[in-house]
Amino acid sequence: MSLATSPFSDLLTRRGPAARSDAIRDILAAGAAPGVLSLAGGLPAPETFPTAELTAVTERVLAESAAAALQYAPTEGTPAMREVLARLATATGAPATAEQLLVTSGSQQGLDLVAGTLLQEGDTVALDDPSYLGAVQSFRRAGAALLPVPSDEDGMDTDALEARLAAGARCKLVYVVPHFHNPSGAVLSAARRRHLASLADEFGFVVLEDDPYADLGFAAARQPSMDVHTERVIRLMSLSKTLCPGLRVSGLKAPAELVHELAAAKQSADLQTNTLGQHILARLLADPEFLPRHVTRLQTFYRTKAGELSELIETKLPWLEFEQPSGGLFLWCTIADPDVTSDDLSRAALAEGVAIVPGTPFCIERDGSRNVRMSFATLSRPELATAVERLSTAFDKCRTGHSSNVHQT
Amino acid sequence: MSLATSPFSDLLTRRGPAARSDAIRDILAAGAAPGVLSLAGGLPAPETFPTAELTAVTERVLAESAAAALQYAPTEGTPAMREVLARLATATGAPATAEQLLVTSGSQQGLDLVAGTLLQEGDTVALDDPSYLGAVQSFRRAGAALLPVPSDEDGMDTDALEARLAAGARCKLVYVVPHFHNPSGAVLSAARRRHLASLADEFGFVVLEDDPYADLGFAAARQPSMDVHTERVIRLMSLSKTLCPGLRVSGLKAPAELVHELAAAKQSADLQTNTLGQHILARLLADPEFLPRHVTRLQTFYRTKAGELSELIETKLPWLEFEQPSGGLFLWCTIADPDVTSDDLSRAALAEGVAIVPGTPFCIERDGSRNVRMSFATLSRPELATAVERLSTAFDKCRTGHSSNVHQT
Repeated sequence: MSLATSPFSDLLTRRGPAARSDAIRDILAAGAAPGVLSLAGGLPAPETFPTAELTAVTERVLAESAAAALQYAPTEGTPAMREVLARLATATGAPATAEQLLVTSGSQQGLDLVAGTLLQEGDTVALDDPSYLGAVQSFRRAGAALLPVPSDEDGMDTDALEARLAAGARCKLVYVVPHFHNPSGAVLSAARRRHLASLADEFGFVVLEDDPYADLGFAAARQPSMDVHTERVIRLMSLSKTLCPGLRVSGLKAPAELVHELAAAKQSADLQTNTLGQHILARLLADPEFLPRHVTRLQTFYRTKAGELSELIETKLPWLEFEQPSGGLFLWCTIADPDVTSDDLSRAALAEGVAIVPGTPFCIERDGSRNVRMSFATLSRPELATAVERLSTAFDKCRTGHSSNVHQT
Repeated sequence: MSLATSPFSDLLTRRGPAARSDAIRDILAAGAAPGVLSLAGGLPAPETFPTAELTAVTERVLAESAAAALQYAPTEGTPAMREVLARLATATGAPATAEQLLVTSGSQQGLDLVAGTLLQEGDTVALDDPSYLGAVQSFRRAGAALLPVPSDEDGMDTDALEARLAAGARCKLVYVVPHFHNPSGAVLSAARRRHLASLADEFGFVVLEDDPYADLGFAAARQPSMDVHTERVIRLMSLSKTLCPGLRVSGLKAPAELVHELAAAKQSADLQTNTLGQHILARLLADPEFLPRHVTRLQTFYRTKAGELSELIETKLPWLEFEQPSGGLFLWCTIADPDVTSDDLSRAALAEGVAIVPGTPFCIERDGSRNVRMSFATLSRPELATAVERLSTAFDKCRTGHSSNVHQT
């Protein structure tokens, strides 16, 4: 057999559609080009990383326990990291013990392990419309069907979910991002949390609570985890926005028997989460004074950034509507001009040197063609001002393009 | 619906058999108990970790580039880490470029991504008998059938593989651990490498080359990667035994188009490998003098350890036969007494306070009931001596137990 130029192409068995996430990958890549100002990413601001504290702790870990910190560790996580996560879980939800905690390689791995362990081909996952794409991707790869549920500024419309369930729909998981939802920015209200929990008990589904922005509330208080209302909760406790993303150490809280099953899947997936990151974070978070102090800094920082972008848009882009965010990293905006779609605008914006994400890839059934997501997290005040000026120019060009199209017809 | 004590038990959908790896997990757990000397693990010796160099490099990374080292990074890996891995691949095989390298969260993730991307339910993977369990587990989870191929001290018997192929058997992957195989210690001979490569070209399968022990050769030279003989190779380039396991940063080399597909799967699995570990290793390995110097230290260390355990067994355990290892971490032994099985011996050994792994879990078709795997890596000389004394006692008790059983019948 002769060697083809692509000896592997006959062997590839692509699983599930990746086209939507590819669209966002392309925009993120374009946003990283020199001279382009990116409002497109989901990155936290590096100014918020506790770099001095992390550096001090890392020095101590390598000086005092390098042999352990550089060695293999248990699949479930180091005992110290599981203890720290159990304390964090208890402080923000129902009392938790270390055996209810699994350390995962980021919450994306938590999503993937839950999808692979709980879902079978044809099972259904209910979720907000719009929703976080990384979750959608894992559910689709597991062969699940999606049941999109309308959502508003109070998060998932649980009455709409109940109506679907009453009409016979069934789901194994309900996926929620309760604080400062990506992309919508919504906070799931207290009443809807209780309602969703009672539906979980009544219909036997599991609430998958993915809460990476919970500490980033600058105009809304953090609410306790759904697990105070029902046992049927899996909590994903990302530290990527609270501390930093680069260590890839996250917590998953679930009943101990499920942690055991998820650990079996994790053993096959990557044996364990990196030991050094676990040693660093377990030490950092062992100081009970660190996190409250740090979270206050975080909230102050993002309150300022959100205010800067909001004010610029209100002043310069009257055609762009949005709710004032109460936390998180994003503004979820609507283009209030029937002649300009978010695809048009994002293309024109990139040509002007600013990257934004159109709403369509986040949407399942709902029309996202007038929505755009913009992050206020990483650009400086002058860069935000320049980005908004470029968006204004891009919008004008879209309008002119539309007008000339109209003239041509 | 009332809350059961196990609200999730109805939802669990265990994938594939985990019983064999559970057996080893139990032994490893027992080996970690206080007072037990463990020859059971697959851990490298912490004395071999380049702790001083890693500490110095980590300090520089956090002082000079914390904002990048603690931030998100591309799914494929940081550009610097991919460059370093491409240079390592080139130095030990066919010329490689960065786009042929994917950074994975340990080589276990590489195995799992390859299994999930290339294998479909019912596909066949050919592999040594005995084989590494973590690989077997990933292949089984992907729904693959296993085609065990006999192996000897020169590794996989490629004539036997050819005979199976000539008789109509087909496989998509052939999995090999070419240097100092786990558990057998075998080195795939140069002639069999060429033969396997020609079979790959003829029958269109891919050689999955998992080579974590390649740098640990103390009595055999390292051979180039299989990719010098055929394009149809995926190389897993673990650094866990060469440097340390705790960073979970590994390389996977494959054609660029396949790297693109594997990266799509990795995005869903864990977004990316931890950024800090990549920054640390890319800096450490950027110094071209570091690795040759370090590998020489490694080989000296393990030559001594292997010699210590070999000598103790030859002197004290005449009933245990083994080939002198030429590298790696393990002795693969045969109990030369028809009345004592490795299960009996490992149980009796644990009662005496020493953990060893019986051969059966590694074996697919072949009889491993007289084999045991022992690691010489992590115990000191006096601990090895005590462990061997305890094994001697355990063996005597097995014999006595057998004799008394005989008397009872």
